[in-house]
Amino acid sequence: MQTLINDAHAIIKRTIEANMMETSIRDVLRKHKFSDEGDVYIVAIGKASWTMANAAYCSIGTHIKQGIVITKYGHSKGAIPHMKIFEAGHPIPDENSLAATQEVIDMVKALRATDEVIFLVSGGGSALFEKPLDGITLEDIISINDQLLKCGADIVEINMVRKRLSAVKAGRFAQICYPVKVFSVILSDVLGDKLDSIASGPAVPDMTISFDVMNVIKKYNISINPVIKKLISDETPKTLENVETVILGSVRSLCESAAECAEGFGYTPLILTTELRCEAREAGSFIASIARQVGKDKYSLKKPSAIIFGGETVVRVKGTGKGGRNQEIALAAAEGIDGLENIVIFSLGSDGTDGPTDAAGGIVDGSSARRLRDKKIKISAALADNDSYNALKKINALITTGPTGINLNDISVILSVRGRDEI
Amino acid sequence: MQTLINDAHAIIKRTIEANMMETSIRDVLRKHKFSDEGDVYIVAIGKASWTMANAAYCSIGTHIKQGIVITKYGHSKGAIPHMKIFEAGHPIPDENSLAATQEVIDMVKALRATDEVIFLVSGGGSALFEKPLDGITLEDIISINDQLLKCGADIVEINMVRKRLSAVKAGRFAQICYPVKVFSVILSDVLGDKLDSIASGPAVPDMTISFDVMNVIKKYNISINPVIKKLISDETPKTLENVETVILGSVRSLCESAAECAEGFGYTPLILTTELRCEAREAGSFIASIARQVGKDKYSLKKPSAIIFGGETVVRVKGTGKGGRNQEIALAAAEGIDGLENIVIFSLGSDGTDGPTDAAGGIVDGSSARRLRDKKIKISAALADNDSYNALKKINALITTGPTGINLNDISVILSVRGRDEI
Repeated sequence: MQTLINDAHAIIKRTIEANMMETSIRDVLRKHKFSDEGDVYIVAIGKASWTMANAAYCSIGTHIKQGIVITKYGHSKGAIPHMKIFEAGHPIPDENSLAATQEVIDMVKALRATDEVIFLVSGGGSALFEKPLDGITLEDIISINDQLLKCGADIVEINMVRKRLSAVKAGRFAQICYPVKVFSVILSDVLGDKLDSIASGPAVPDMTISFDVMNVIKKYNISINPVIKKLISDETPKTLENVETVILGSVRSLCESAAECAEGFGYTPLILTTELRCEAREAGSFIASIARQVGKDKYSLKKPSAIIFGGETVVRVKGTGKGGRNQEIALAAAEGIDGLENIVIFSLGSDGTDGPTDAAGGIVDGSSARRLRDKKIKISAALADNDSYNALKKINALITTGPTGINLNDISVILSVRGRDEI
Repeated sequence: MQTLINDAHAIIKRTIEANMMETSIRDVLRKHKFSDEGDVYIVAIGKASWTMANAAYCSIGTHIKQGIVITKYGHSKGAIPHMKIFEAGHPIPDENSLAATQEVIDMVKALRATDEVIFLVSGGGSALFEKPLDGITLEDIISINDQLLKCGADIVEINMVRKRLSAVKAGRFAQICYPVKVFSVILSDVLGDKLDSIASGPAVPDMTISFDVMNVIKKYNISINPVIKKLISDETPKTLENVETVILGSVRSLCESAAECAEGFGYTPLILTTELRCEAREAGSFIASIARQVGKDKYSLKKPSAIIFGGETVVRVKGTGKGGRNQEIALAAAEGIDGLENIVIFSLGSDGTDGPTDAAGGIVDGSSARRLRDKKIKISAALADNDSYNALKKINALITTGPTGINLNDISVILSVRGRDEI
């Protein structure tokens, strides 16, 4: 059992390290092959743009000729050599968004074909990076947005329309850069997000067609003038030959790091989901039921396995205890694997803070439920009171990492190995 | 998509057929190799013993020399040729339990070594099949049972003790039969049940040791007389050479039938659990999140996959609608796979009746959520009102099998195939 627990802690440590901003940006930029002939320029947009640009500078600073960072008001943490830093409106774009975006356009338009743009994209970029197409104003965009919101259009439909009115969204920024190469590094912290939705995809081909967008306009009976009608009918780019894209620090990369690490330890890794969204304690029960099946018959997963679940569960707080969603997953799972040997289940938040506690999550095995009983703690009662923290603490089953500086949702892992009596 | 839906319905049909009592007993008995020299005797115990014995008679009636059936009061459905049918006390054993059990013992003790006993075991057999060991009475057993219950001992602990006081439990019935061969056919309808716990395992080696049993006695400070102390210290059989065991109609066999059938259709089957117990709608969300991951990267499951979940989820009814746990799983899953192509998720109760409805469950794909929106049905609202039946009915997503005559919990399946544009 100790080996399993040790493996678990090693997987936790390495997974977090591999996904820290500095580590992951450095890995990505050092693996990337830059041209010997041109210069490297940085364009960083979104709420994490300062941190991303700073990490890029720390990794390949000497290669960077110039850069522009556009972040939300209050999100700059100081100067970065060679970079101009703007703060602008979010979630509603403002004049500073437009001005900063224009600076970026002016910069990239002046580049040589051998130069390269490192485009660092994070959430919030949609408002911070904006230029209305010729013939319309920021007010036109905001007005259509408002109308769509009021009519009950969903976020997918709103984005479909908004992208069509922008000179930089929906792949058009990459078109402006052409033939300069764009190395797009996208930080994803939304479950199952699509690349073209993060910051409205300035360097991602747009997969919607004008016909569909006009259908949204008709469906909600949105009033648009002839200029806008014409702009919507102009097709967005469907391929972008000058763009290379890397996804950084999504919950998916968190799961992949755990999988790689577990594989190194001899487990067969399987990522079952990166989009877990259900209730935490129910997820814990479900995960335990999967753990119980490993190695059972020819249609089951084989031992040794590392089964990985990424996502962000929810807790409906009804009690007065202390805990977090990962601790509830672990505690509920402890009940589900009561008495089983050679299984460990752990769950933690990648930011190192699960709920309002100093723990990142919890780690349990087949003896946890018994140890809780020995301490007179009922799992069902602890869950009903949302007191997972104190229950797990009593049996030394908390995971504490301290703040990790990353925030990529949560990860839960089953480690299952053969017992000595199993072939 | 039609192919996937067709596959789903074929899998449902074949899975149920393969698990019907008549079919499954017939399959098991016809596959079994009986000796040419001896006669075949039936011993059937438990709540389903009449049905099992009758199915055995319908399958291999001409081979059966004699049989004894012990079932619960009111559970006999009439005479079966060559068989003596007893009804007895359940859940508390009574004098009829003892008398019927003694008849069985007398019958098997008179057999020749070349004869064979077909031992049909179902739940409830623990009370119906009982003979106290020499020196103690049924009252002694009931009294210890009561004491254990009052002290808060759990069912595992209670069974550990009770088995030690019986002349037929914990493998001892098979010992009585020795050297006559016992072909034990066990009907399991409890989630994750252990063989030695069904009917207290009269023909299953007992895995507890006297030392552990005495610890239970000490832990709860149970008063026992010296005779009982001596009986507990007598070790139960740890191997039984004359027994061959087949498990019939568990939720596991339901899952295996679905896996086999899906494999035949070209899907790679995976049974992820046979012990699902969490809340239905949360399970639906979880299952959808797993469906979304299939084929995504090298650590994910590959397409085409059939991912199978067995168990029995729960619904906490708060609304006034109509539905069942499988319909809630399907409806919640519909939301989770909204817009995805080449995926079908279905969930059904093996008895053909999901909740108080005429449906067995539900079947959804990536278009279901949109079709519900088109009918102005909000999935979250339908779930909140426990109205999964009416929601699924509106989009023709109910599964209706009619009563199937089996009751082996529920099964949920994801079918995921490659799209035309996927390699």
